[in-house]
Amino acid sequence: MKTINFIFGVHCHQPVGNFPEVIKDAYFRSYLPFIEIMEKHPSIKFTAHYSGILYEWFLENHPEFIEKLKMLVKRGQLEIMTGGFYEPILPVIPDEDKLGQVAMETEFIKKNFLKTPRGLWLSERVWEPHLPKTLSMSKVEYITVDDYHFIAAGLSEKDLFGYYNTEEEGYILNVFPISKHLRYLVPFKLPHETIDYLKSLATEDGSRAAVLADDGEKFGVWPGTNKWVFEDKWLEQFLSALESNKDTIRTITFSEYIDEYPPIGKVYLPTASYAEMMEWALPATAAVKYERVVEEIKSFGKYDEYRQFIRGGFFRNFFAKYPESNNMHKKMLFVSEKISTLGKGKKMGLSSEARDNRVDIARQYLWKGQCNCAYWHGVFGGLYLNYLRHAVYENLIAAEVEVDRIMHGDQKFIEIRTFDFDKDGSDELLVSNDLLSCYFSPAYGGALFELDYKPKNFNLINGLSRREEAYHRKIKQASQATSNTGDVSSIHDQVKVKEAGLENYLIYDWHRRLCLQDHFMSINTQMSEFINLKYKESGDFVGGAYAPMVKKTQSEIELTFKKKGNILIESRKIPLEVIKIISIFKGQSLINIKYEISNLSDVLIDSIFGVEFNFSMLGGDSPERYYIFKGFEGIDKKLASIGEVVGCSGVKIVDEWKGFSVLLEPGCLDRIWRFPVETVSQSEAGFERTYQSSLVFPNKRVIIEPGKKWENSLRLLIE
Amino acid sequence: MKTINFIFGVHCHQPVGNFPEVIKDAYFRSYLPFIEIMEKHPSIKFTAHYSGILYEWFLENHPEFIEKLKMLVKRGQLEIMTGGFYEPILPVIPDEDKLGQVAMETEFIKKNFLKTPRGLWLSERVWEPHLPKTLSMSKVEYITVDDYHFIAAGLSEKDLFGYYNTEEEGYILNVFPISKHLRYLVPFKLPHETIDYLKSLATEDGSRAAVLADDGEKFGVWPGTNKWVFEDKWLEQFLSALESNKDTIRTITFSEYIDEYPPIGKVYLPTASYAEMMEWALPATAAVKYERVVEEIKSFGKYDEYRQFIRGGFFRNFFAKYPESNNMHKKMLFVSEKISTLGKGKKMGLSSEARDNRVDIARQYLWKGQCNCAYWHGVFGGLYLNYLRHAVYENLIAAEVEVDRIMHGDQKFIEIRTFDFDKDGSDELLVSNDLLSCYFSPAYGGALFELDYKPKNFNLINGLSRREEAYHRKIKQASQATSNTGDVSSIHDQVKVKEAGLENYLIYDWHRRLCLQDHFMSINTQMSEFINLKYKESGDFVGGAYAPMVKKTQSEIELTFKKKGNILIESRKIPLEVIKIISIFKGQSLINIKYEISNLSDVLIDSIFGVEFNFSMLGGDSPERYYIFKGFEGIDKKLASIGEVVGCSGVKIVDEWKGFSVLLEPGCLDRIWRFPVETVSQSEAGFERTYQSSLVFPNKRVIIEPGKKWENSLRLLIE
Repeated sequence: MKTINFIFGVHCHQPVGNFPEVIKDAYFRSYLPFIEIMEKHPSIKFTAHYSGILYEWFLENHPEFIEKLKMLVKRGQLEIMTGGFYEPILPVIPDEDKLGQVAMETEFIKKNFLKTPRGLWLSERVWEPHLPKTLSMSKVEYITVDDYHFIAAGLSEKDLFGYYNTEEEGYILNVFPISKHLRYLVPFKLPHETIDYLKSLATEDGSRAAVLADDGEKFGVWPGTNKWVFEDKWLEQFLSALESNKDTIRTITFSEYIDEYPPIGKVYLPTASYAEMMEWALPATAAVKYERVVEEIKSFGKYDEYRQFIRGGFFRNFFAKYPESNNMHKKMLFVSEKISTLGKGKKMGLSSEARDNRVDIARQYLWKGQCNCAYWHGVFGGLYLNYLRHAVYENLIAAEVEVDRIMHGDQKFIEIRTFDFDKDGSDELLVSNDLLSCYFSPAYGGALFELDYKPKNFNLINGLSRREEAYHRKIKQASQATSNTGDVSSIHDQVKVKEAGLENYLIYDWHRRLCLQDHFMSINTQMSEFINLKYKESGDFVGGAYAPMVKKTQSEIELTFKKKGNILIESRKIPLEVIKIISIFKGQSLINIKYEISNLSDVLIDSIFGVEFNFSMLGGDSPERYYIFKGFEGIDKKLASIGEVVGCSGVKIVDEWKGFSVLLEPGCLDRIWRFPVETVSQSEAGFERTYQSSLVFPNKRVIIEPGKKWENSLRLLIE
Repeated sequence: MKTINFIFGVHCHQPVGNFPEVIKDAYFRSYLPFIEIMEKHPSIKFTAHYSGILYEWFLENHPEFIEKLKMLVKRGQLEIMTGGFYEPILPVIPDEDKLGQVAMETEFIKKNFLKTPRGLWLSERVWEPHLPKTLSMSKVEYITVDDYHFIAAGLSEKDLFGYYNTEEEGYILNVFPISKHLRYLVPFKLPHETIDYLKSLATEDGSRAAVLADDGEKFGVWPGTNKWVFEDKWLEQFLSALESNKDTIRTITFSEYIDEYPPIGKVYLPTASYAEMMEWALPATAAVKYERVVEEIKSFGKYDEYRQFIRGGFFRNFFAKYPESNNMHKKMLFVSEKISTLGKGKKMGLSSEARDNRVDIARQYLWKGQCNCAYWHGVFGGLYLNYLRHAVYENLIAAEVEVDRIMHGDQKFIEIRTFDFDKDGSDELLVSNDLLSCYFSPAYGGALFELDYKPKNFNLINGLSRREEAYHRKIKQASQATSNTGDVSSIHDQVKVKEAGLENYLIYDWHRRLCLQDHFMSINTQMSEFINLKYKESGDFVGGAYAPMVKKTQSEIELTFKKKGNILIESRKIPLEVIKIISIFKGQSLINIKYEISNLSDVLIDSIFGVEFNFSMLGGDSPERYYIFKGFEGIDKKLASIGEVVGCSGVKIVDEWKGFSVLLEPGCLDRIWRFPVETVSQSEAGFERTYQSSLVFPNKRVIIEPGKKWENSLRLLIE
């Protein structure tokens, strides 16, 4: 009689920083009912992976769920897979953290389920060929990746009913290919279709395995699936159908299969993830081209044949595509290195045990900050969601605060590091004291690109610039279709949008939205032109290279950024020099910025000059977060508001929820323009507008005589 | 005025194990005249990489060449790049050896050219994303790869006039894209075409760089190029044209360009090599499909557009495609680990200095054994060339002999290791004494798959099985065309072959060609049927899984391999057991093999039984290598001869050149069939037949009564 092994696995995860109500909802709509039904079918073997974020939530909110899992493990029905505890993209975190995060999850599983896990869930199936070494050192015997990875290596689908082994420096790892066909069947098609498909794979010797391992959220969280899977009893029926076909279809766990059958052979997988992820990782232009090429090949009826050789981009290029993702990644590497160096440092008055304890705490925060969701963007919001990015920074800063305590105890301090923080080939400057970390890029306009307020673990400059995305075309096309036909519904036929008029927000920034970017523009420039990028920048200082100088005393660090540049007035290039002197003090959450602009020409400079600030406060519309303009009470206080205030000596941004505020005193630049930077991105729910930061632009018409100097001082105080 | 930077680099290399006359020829036809002409054009900056194999040859044969290079470096005309000294594929050797091989070449360059190299030539441009860490630790600032790597990451050709930086764990590396367009122009098109192309790239700001870095052998070694480049003065004219266009085209070295210009941006490159290499790395079936798909896309006129997303396989899959390559690679890893473990071991009676010295010698041999050429196969012979594989084994065995000396001094010894040598998931057995290393695979027919004779650093079982290659189709098609048209020349129109009738050698082995494979076949089987694979194997012992047992005394190791299996006689399955008991002794280069075959059935067994041996002696036709059949003087002694000898008590294979012989005494299996295993592969010169091993097959009609046992002893002596 012909038989087939069926390996059925689920992976469940929620991002660090996700809203508690979302996790609760997923628990009751998916995680719990799924397990309750599996419980009723003890003969159906399955495998599950939960990220550590979920384990922590279960323990705190529903410890009985852990008990349920433990019982299923005990009775041999359920195999639990390990992973990086906080669901990092393993290839892009340091080896030490790979080992640490996997050990943490493995220890958790051993302790709570009394069984050593043998397999690992590879987050987002992002594979690189050097992984087997660290995974093997972590006692991982097998992982699962997409069949796509194998096909890209040159194998055919018919070769993929089982597992292969691979190796790095002689360290072996077994790799199971996940069937795309099964991923599309379960749970979307009627149960018997999966059963029929499995039966069609059965062989006389019964050695084949069909592998399904996919997001557990497909059972209840994804739109429509709660009704389909549970109310309409898809899962119940599927399991019953498996039971009544048990002579042909044998459910088995990954480990049981490995113990019973040898690998099909050896394979080396190239860098890969699932096909969609590789498409998303392409630069926008290439992504548009990719879509067009794939559509065209499909129109030739050749896609199934060519697919093996068609490939998109490479995951790590999210760091090249989005400097904001790169900055998080490089900060993560920086914090990891700080902690790792600490391991070898000296004691600083702490007992060895207390110190180790603090190092462990720092490392936990670091690992939380490695959670993958905020580092990339595809069909989910990911990087575009400010609260996910904030969760990364919050944890990385918390880790740094622990490091500060180990290094400095309760002592106030101030220090500076000059190094290539973002790994772009130019040095950045990092000034840090007991309250602030200020990251400056002399090479990029002398900008302040990260500002961490340590008492609240909050990075104030955590916005996202507006960039073209491949999918923006669809919004534009839909909006043109609408205006041509006059039929509003046609937008919604083609594109799911959360609000109308999104096409009006498709403005693309020509520079990054940071702090301390120095703008010059014609004296006739209107605020609306500045906001809509309809003005012409007349200087070359935004994004330009400033020469840095550092002065350091016991209690203060003074940075001087200088750039000789030009402004264009009536097509004449006028040379001038901008100097900004930035002072930061031990024990204070204050930044003083003094500007000196020298007219190096023999003509009058008459220009608007302004300094751009962006503060990202996690929401533009909430009542707990608002503006206060000193002396201007009656105006719109929303952080998403647009407007001008003239003659203002100080603007304060208040975050009542987090309990701190940012005060900006602009000196003589007392005309303040403000507007929210809002991106348009795709998420499961459709296209949506997302608040990224409140842009505050103190500016003024500045007149400088030939050979003369103009001066102004600004002050930034966080408390 | 518009200008363009032109970076011109050459890379020169000859495989470890190549014939001295080939290297000498390359020197006089290419390396020397190239440099002599560059010498006459001091204003033309260029960059060069020579592999360590060449440096060693220059030092020994033409030290004045090194002086010439040194002078060019001194006058600032020439930049020298480093590399892995013996030209390994860096991603597939252990990190420790990556660091070691690069350090060795860097030290050589510093010592001989008085300048620290800043760039590295990446062998075969085989890139993996974890390289930046080790390269950066090796003080490498930049490498060059194909523009294809960048295009695969999602960039366009127009973005590639300069360099990018990339990173791993924060370790930075600069990467230059080599222009494919320039690779096709130089030196194949007239000089002015390259000049025109370069001029077309010039810009007002002059910041662009066009990069050409390619095999130095294109200048004089490749067919036809010696006349074209030197006699017809292509190079002379090209350099003069560069000189007379120096206002527009500025020749510059890689390092100068880095010092002057920042990177264009950040990029992360996926696993890649040049497009052809990725095609070769595909399994044969996928390679055929790839060729067809690419041809079809070209026929649609879409190749240029789709190319960005079309990708072949992954270099490491040469180890999956060819078990012979895998075995070399895994032996290399094994030897590397042995040496590396040694570093931490104890002294064993040697002075610390003498010991370090020996470890260094061992490491040098290991590194020589990492030379890439024998590990893969594309348009060059590579893996198919027995002398290149032999060079790998010769060096790896020499390294092991050094390790033996460190561990055992002059003591005789015998030891056994049981471990997964070839990383296929099953254990192999390695029995080693002071004279032999014998590698057995119980899981694969209880075969002996490597037999190292240490006094000569010679692996006797180093053949290559005959497999289908994607390009074999062409030979078959051409031969059919010939027989259809009767026009012999049509073969040569389509396919360059070194001899006629090659299609007759396209026989594909169904099992690996090793030693101690146990064959059963019908008593009517003719030798010609066995040779041409036109017989039916009636047993399931070849490649079948034997259960191993080990007995060890002070002076002897005895392995027992047992397998219960079946033979098919007149479609009846007859159960039987084969036991082979293999004895190896301290201080002796002797292997005794005792066979016991038990008839487990109630019917008579009447079958031919034979044991297959393959000895790979580097040449089937040379007069210094031949057979001696005891008592049979008059027969063809060539190792490539085909024939039967009946009643022979011993066959000796003599290698006068290496100075050793192998004696096989077959016991009662005294009918000996022999034939050469010859492959058909492609090389630069066309399709060719290559001798791989001499198959010696002692066999006999064996009759075993029900329940009875048959016994025989064989003896293998190398001396």
